[in-house]
Amino acid sequence: MLAEIKGLNEECGVFGVWGHEKAAELTYYGLHSLQHRGQEGAGIAVSDQETVNIHKDTGLVAEVFQNGQLKDLKGTAAIGHVRYATAGGGGYENVQPLHFRSQTGSMALAHNGNLVNATALKHQLENQGSIFQTTSDTEVLAHLIKRSGFSTLKDQLKNALSMVKGAYAFLLLTEDSLMVALDPHGLRPLSIGLLGDAYVIASETCALDIVGAKHERDVQPGELLVINNDGITSERFAYNANRAMCSMEYIYFSRPDSNIDGINVHSARKSMGKQLASEAPIEADVVTGVPDSSISAAIGYAEQSQIPYELGLIKNRYVGRTFIQPSQELREQGVKMKLSAVRKIVEGKRVVMVDDSIVRGTTSRRIVNMLREAGATEVHVRISAPPIKNPCFYGIDTSTTEELMASKHSIEEMREIIGADSLYFISEEGLVNAIGRPFENGGQCMACFTGKYPTEIYPDTAHPHEKVTC
Amino acid sequence: MLAEIKGLNEECGVFGVWGHEKAAELTYYGLHSLQHRGQEGAGIAVSDQETVNIHKDTGLVAEVFQNGQLKDLKGTAAIGHVRYATAGGGGYENVQPLHFRSQTGSMALAHNGNLVNATALKHQLENQGSIFQTTSDTEVLAHLIKRSGFSTLKDQLKNALSMVKGAYAFLLLTEDSLMVALDPHGLRPLSIGLLGDAYVIASETCALDIVGAKHERDVQPGELLVINNDGITSERFAYNANRAMCSMEYIYFSRPDSNIDGINVHSARKSMGKQLASEAPIEADVVTGVPDSSISAAIGYAEQSQIPYELGLIKNRYVGRTFIQPSQELREQGVKMKLSAVRKIVEGKRVVMVDDSIVRGTTSRRIVNMLREAGATEVHVRISAPPIKNPCFYGIDTSTTEELMASKHSIEEMREIIGADSLYFISEEGLVNAIGRPFENGGQCMACFTGKYPTEIYPDTAHPHEKVTC
Amino acid sequence: MLAEIKGLNEECGVFGVWGHEKAAELTYYGLHSLQHRGQEGAGIAVSDQETVNIHKDTGLVAEVFQNGQLKDLKGTAAIGHVRYATAGGGGYENVQPLHFRSQTGSMALAHNGNLVNATALKHQLENQGSIFQTTSDTEVLAHLIKRSGFSTLKDQLKNALSMVKGAYAFLLLTEDSLMVALDPHGLRPLSIGLLGDAYVIASETCALDIVGAKHERDVQPGELLVINNDGITSERFAYNANRAMCSMEYIYFSRPDSNIDGINVHSARKSMGKQLASEAPIEADVVTGVPDSSISAAIGYAEQSQIPYELGLIKNRYVGRTFIQPSQELREQGVKMKLSAVRKIVEGKRVVMVDDSIVRGTTSRRIVNMLREAGATEVHVRISAPPIKNPCFYGIDTSTTEELMASKHSIEEMREIIGADSLYFISEEGLVNAIGRPFENGGQCMACFTGKYPTEIYPDTAHPHEKVTC
Amino acid sequence: MLAEIKGLNEECGVFGVWGHEKAAELTYYGLHSLQHRGQEGAGIAVSDQETVNIHKDTGLVAEVFQNGQLKDLKGTAAIGHVRYATAGGGGYENVQPLHFRSQTGSMALAHNGNLVNATALKHQLENQGSIFQTTSDTEVLAHLIKRSGFSTLKDQLKNALSMVKGAYAFLLLTEDSLMVALDPHGLRPLSIGLLGDAYVIASETCALDIVGAKHERDVQPGELLVINNDGITSERFAYNANRAMCSMEYIYFSRPDSNIDGINVHSARKSMGKQLASEAPIEADVVTGVPDSSISAAIGYAEQSQIPYELGLIKNRYVGRTFIQPSQELREQGVKMKLSAVRKIVEGKRVVMVDDSIVRGTTSRRIVNMLREAGATEVHVRISAPPIKNPCFYGIDTSTTEELMASKHSIEEMREIIGADSLYFISEEGLVNAIGRPFENGGQCMACFTGKYPTEIYPDTAHPHEKVTC
Repeated sequence: MLAEIKGLNEECGVFGVWGHEKAAELTYYGLHSLQHRGQEGAGIAVSDQETVNIHKDTGLVAEVFQNGQLKDLKGTAAIGHVRYATAGGGGYENVQPLHFRSQTGSMALAHNGNLVNATALKHQLENQGSIFQTTSDTEVLAHLIKRSGFSTLKDQLKNALSMVKGAYAFLLLTEDSLMVALDPHGLRPLSIGLLGDAYVIASETCALDIVGAKHERDVQPGELLVINNDGITSERFAYNANRAMCSMEYIYFSRPDSNIDGINVHSARKSMGKQLASEAPIEADVVTGVPDSSISAAIGYAEQSQIPYELGLIKNRYVGRTFIQPSQELREQGVKMKLSAVRKIVEGKRVVMVDDSIVRGTTSRRIVNMLREAGATEVHVRISAPPIKNPCFYGIDTSTTEELMASKHSIEEMREIIGADSLYFISEEGLVNAIGRPFENGGQCMACFTGKYPTEIYPDTAHPHEKVTC
Repeated sequence: MLAEIKGLNEECGVFGVWGHEKAAELTYYGLHSLQHRGQEGAGIAVSDQETVNIHKDTGLVAEVFQNGQLKDLKGTAAIGHVRYATAGGGGYENVQPLHFRSQTGSMALAHNGNLVNATALKHQLENQGSIFQTTSDTEVLAHLIKRSGFSTLKDQLKNALSMVKGAYAFLLLTEDSLMVALDPHGLRPLSIGLLGDAYVIASETCALDIVGAKHERDVQPGELLVINNDGITSERFAYNANRAMCSMEYIYFSRPDSNIDGINVHSARKSMGKQLASEAPIEADVVTGVPDSSISAAIGYAEQSQIPYELGLIKNRYVGRTFIQPSQELREQGVKMKLSAVRKIVEGKRVVMVDDSIVRGTTSRRIVNMLREAGATEVHVRISAPPIKNPCFYGIDTSTTEELMASKHSIEEMREIIGADSLYFISEEGLVNAIGRPFENGGQCMACFTGKYPTEIYPDTAHPHEKVTC
Repeated sequence: MLAEIKGLNEECGVFGVWGHEKAAELTYYGLHSLQHRGQEGAGIAVSDQETVNIHKDTGLVAEVFQNGQLKDLKGTAAIGHVRYATAGGGGYENVQPLHFRSQTGSMALAHNGNLVNATALKHQLENQGSIFQTTSDTEVLAHLIKRSGFSTLKDQLKNALSMVKGAYAFLLLTEDSLMVALDPHGLRPLSIGLLGDAYVIASETCALDIVGAKHERDVQPGELLVINNDGITSERFAYNANRAMCSMEYIYFSRPDSNIDGINVHSARKSMGKQLASEAPIEADVVTGVPDSSISAAIGYAEQSQIPYELGLIKNRYVGRTFIQPSQELREQGVKMKLSAVRKIVEGKRVVMVDDSIVRGTTSRRIVNMLREAGATEVHVRISAPPIKNPCFYGIDTSTTEELMASKHSIEEMREIIGADSLYFISEEGLVNAIGRPFENGGQCMACFTGKYPTEIYPDTAHPHEKVTC
Repeated sequence: MLAEIKGLNEECGVFGVWGHEKAAELTYYGLHSLQHRGQEGAGIAVSDQETVNIHKDTGLVAEVFQNGQLKDLKGTAAIGHVRYATAGGGGYENVQPLHFRSQTGSMALAHNGNLVNATALKHQLENQGSIFQTTSDTEVLAHLIKRSGFSTLKDQLKNALSMVKGAYAFLLLTEDSLMVALDPHGLRPLSIGLLGDAYVIASETCALDIVGAKHERDVQPGELLVINNDGITSERFAYNANRAMCSMEYIYFSRPDSNIDGINVHSARKSMGKQLASEAPIEADVVTGVPDSSISAAIGYAEQSQIPYELGLIKNRYVGRTFIQPSQELREQGVKMKLSAVRKIVEGKRVVMVDDSIVRGTTSRRIVNMLREAGATEVHVRISAPPIKNPCFYGIDTSTTEELMASKHSIEEMREIIGADSLYFISEEGLVNAIGRPFENGGQCMACFTGKYPTEIYPDTAHPHEKVTC
């Protein structure tokens, strides 16, 4: 589905390299392949063992580095970040990596996720005299590191990590080391690869593939990696938490060619589609998916149901912020944005429309309507996620509870509102089985469906909708 | 398949509006949906009944109009153009529409296609004192119009059209009329739509859809439309030519949601895939398509063969000319450009790889190799076009004969060169049947496969490769 | 005075190089030093003996070539142009050099001046079948060259030059030669220099200086230079015309460090100031000049009158088109554009304000008012040009007759309108003597003062104000 | 003289507005008129009483705000900054105003000057847990404010100011107030003006003039102004320090139309020129000044000596960073950068060349040589500053002691090195008298000439050359 339409937005991607002559360039290509995780800002920090340099700005990766800035980022280690800006605060200062300098050296930080106790921590830090130049959780982490009192950076970082709660896939670069940490529940994906002798870290395996790195393994929940000229060391800074990989990474966010905990995302989506076809069969003429993220599930549905898959909906790509949006007047006259129904395919047909999720429901209603206007005689909606009834506090901007359609309406009401002939959501069990993760109950975070959050949530936990995360 | 890799490039798209307050804006959205037909330049000319104004430049539509230029293009009629620049001549001066001024008024011209007797005509015109500021065929047409001696523009245009040969979908805008002409064989697609009272003309129906216009009919071969304040008139300026719609429009160029002569392009491609599966079945584990243009055919192949369709190859999108290409060194280390194989999908599998055509063969070899490196045990290549043995002189840059792999090698040799376990091209008859055009022998141009050109070709006919067309 | 304020605008500068490895780069620096002659567009055409390549665009020289385009302009000969766009037609197509291609080769043309019979010639050419893509006189010349029927380019050019009337300093570049022509009256400046073995041609000598070329001599009225691999040849294509170098080049347009016919422009201006002081002495406390062009005259006035020169007016520089103009509201509140009076200098003082000319009078009134608001007790205006009563048809955009203040008002009326305590214009004789050109009556064009045009003027002679010149 | 050539660089300008609907726009024009004080970065922070918003970036003012960013800066109070980047650290993060957010509100800081105890303060703050994201002194001040423990911002600021030493003209903007402070010696200029009911603060009075504000008075050494909705209050936070206005502001940095402590800069420079002519007369034919900053002094020299002032040197302006520098090869062939001698003026003449200062001497040598190559028979150099023998620690980047020519050589040696026929520097006493400030000994900082610094200097005082100031 279309992030821009739905208001369901990932909150960033991270990438890191240690031990490669072209660290910044590799990071550039890695970030480019993670661009779907954040389009509002990008940055790369690089270490040449003596100093840490950085370039970052608002915009797409290709835009941020379009004037030769990569050439100035010399060094053999780098970390990079792409971010999505929530309403709460765009602008340069929240673009990551954040960069801190002191008389003993610099450090750059890049973070994907959301801390649920950031507000409380910030309050405390300000009372102790800290001043903040960003509205990012990451700056909180930097202050905690600095104030920990321990003598080595590793101990400072471990101390800081023991104070934060929530979701984080975290990279820290100094002149002489690259540190990598994943939260104790492993809420966000993070993988390690090897490119010759160099270590590569990425939010998704597709970024390892694009730079030619061989996937070694995924970073483990509660794991801290320290990479420096002596090699790599791993230790656990937290134990015994339940695994809780974000289900929406499989359903919607990650690129179909990425693998998470050994499971290919496209394959998982196709299985969801098959599962949906088994759970909710229907007589129809064509199956169509909402591009791009629901295509795999739609093909799975078609394969299982033996109803032909067709291109009933097409996405109109556009490029960056230079594109001029149609005026209200033109939109009313029918100028399409982003998505069109293909009349020739759906006219006179009973259509199964597979989508990955329903957030506010407005988009689904619009698409169903579009299909009917293009001549579809029936529209059966199949959703490859269970109903989203609860907000996410771990780095996905799913809107607040009141905005979530499934939190206020029965499925039958939702069907009527979106105007479908039938509406079916995959079952929670069906979802877990379709993905097939080799952990108890899938080891997935299902909080947005079930309300069972894997961590504590606090009264003043800021919702990503209201602040800047990552 | 990937235009950038293959050296198989469309030569432009055109769009026109008459009778709408927002003529330039509609053209902007129309051109945007035709962007796949040309990424190197774009322009819009607009008439406010008193004068013709124009803005054009090299770059994507969104880039060319990014600084508010649309606002200055006021008027109720407009024509627009997107173009692909061949090696022979990029630069601003060949960007269309071309704009000519005289003491009696201005005219703007936009053209998709290629004239086969342009060189001869140009020679003659220069001897008569004409001077040329572009290397475009379109300027030849302008000179012919001007020199015809007839008193009305319509007669001048008809006279000029009687002298040119080849492929053309042609729009001409003056202060008080919009003229539209299609060559006698109908080699390039061109459709008419209605948006309220306004007329809309477009190279593909997807551009009608995006602006909310209702498709009326396709422009007929040899038809000349004149649209002005008195309405629309149609006449034939040429008769009896055989219909010869470019087959590659169905196979590769047009957007899958466009319809040509009533046939949806995605559906035609799916039929080609099914036809391929019938003509050349194979035992295999997965079917995959080369994105984006071969996905529909691959799904058809999978549906017919009952082998599951999977996402074995993925395209890495990038944005415009600001993207930094990886250095040779990084490419050798494995940094991927544009296309990656998905290891998780193809490892240990027998793969059917469906592609739309083979031009020079280098890309096919690279993709087969990529699949093998990702662990495919067998790679069976199925091509939804017959072998391309002859150059195109009608506006597609297919490389010269010597560069065409199929002109020098048997299929078995080709299979060996590209490293496939098996290689099969759809039969000519199979292609015609799969598309299913309601004309004798399909009414298609098959010249690049058969060498039977629908028009004369002259010894000095310039190949698109060597000059600027459209 | 300030071109932007006054509506007195030069119409272009030209620069050419033959025989230097870095021809395009030299032209870039040469054009940069001629930037005061035209800020709206710039271009360079270069020949590598095999082909002529070009890059041009709207904007300042530094803007037009800011993305590495110079590197692509390889060759040992080049011509360049900077232009000022009149209301009649900005836009890329009128940016020079113009570039024409034919089967026998290309030619690029750059032109400074204005043809007085362009309309008639264009009419005739259109009747013969010529079509025009620009509104520039230069395209007329190109058509005349092409249609002349002679076999060598030199003869074609001479034939064409015999048909045009008016002012022109003209450069023509082909693959194998650079041709240079100056109109029979020598209305516009044009100089030749040597840089090692290379020939350099420039509108002003300051452009020779900046590239390190030694000034050889000025091009003579009616002279045609042909430079090629055999060296340079000179001949006269027209004889006996009266010399009529534009007086305003000395008074206002040329850079103070340029020399025209051996006379330094700063020195000429200083002499004008001294002459003014002799012709119209006044008791006063300070002398101030309107920057930038009147500073030299003001210093001359001060030197002669022994009244101290002070900085009573200062120019606020701004850069290019990105500068945001103050809103009407802010201007009314006192936000200054371009020019401010320096209160500390003029408060309580009797001020002599030296300016170079009065066109519409609005600027003079504004400056006098500014000085009074800053506390000047008296303001005596001294103008280093005689009253401008007639339009210029030779490439300077002086407004039409009705707009010229001096054509409708006596000097006493003008004094009252601009609010000065006294107003004096240099006498025509005083101007000629101050410049001191070694020709009869100075050999200057004084038409804008006297109405005596050195060439014929036709009823339909287009005024630069209404069309595109150069 | 030319900052770019000489390595004598001002370190910033500040501007502030309180109580005007168009606060950001006024700041834009004010900063533009202060552009000579810093070309590397610019920013504006604005308060709409509820929140403080900011936009800033590297580049010229016109560049930084070229894409409509001013429109988003709504509010009735604003502060702005232009900065010069030293080698120690360019980049976005050091561009001012700095912006700090806390749970109780935001503050933005803009600073012109240099703190001499910044290193020590930073060290101490880091030990207390502060982390730094910039290398700017201004961030030190922010930490001091935050950590002061006082309850009101005014008291916090006064406490912080009591800890810093050095030069500072300082603006602080919060949601509900604008605070202004000048260091106890008044080392940098800072003025207050009124525009209707609005207060305007600026580094130089030229910025008051350009926005139409009436100059009220200069901010006093050790003065703290607090402006809010209740009006303006003034108090002294430090007493009894000697006035020590930077002499170089009069000699070189400030705009000639600015007044400092009631003395016009152009007039002061002209007096310096007269003083020089009295102290060091010489027989010569022409006086010329090195543009732009030495023109006034040269005119004064000419007036006093009765030797005519002429335009012997001319500056070639160029625009921003897009300008392509000539290659070494072209420079050797004579392509000039920035400055040319005018042969026609100086050939065969004895020339007095007035310049404002000598730093490293390389530029002076180059200019003298240029004049000789253009034919000057004698070159007499007169400098309107005493010899610069000591580095500046107060915000001017004068190079380190070893690089200062006058610290290593006698005047006779310097004369010989630069190749002049005679060389004379204005006397210290002559300088003080020429400027004529109404304070004991002028109340000027003469430290770069005399080595007598008005404040303590510490062993680890960072030289502006080595760090980021302002």
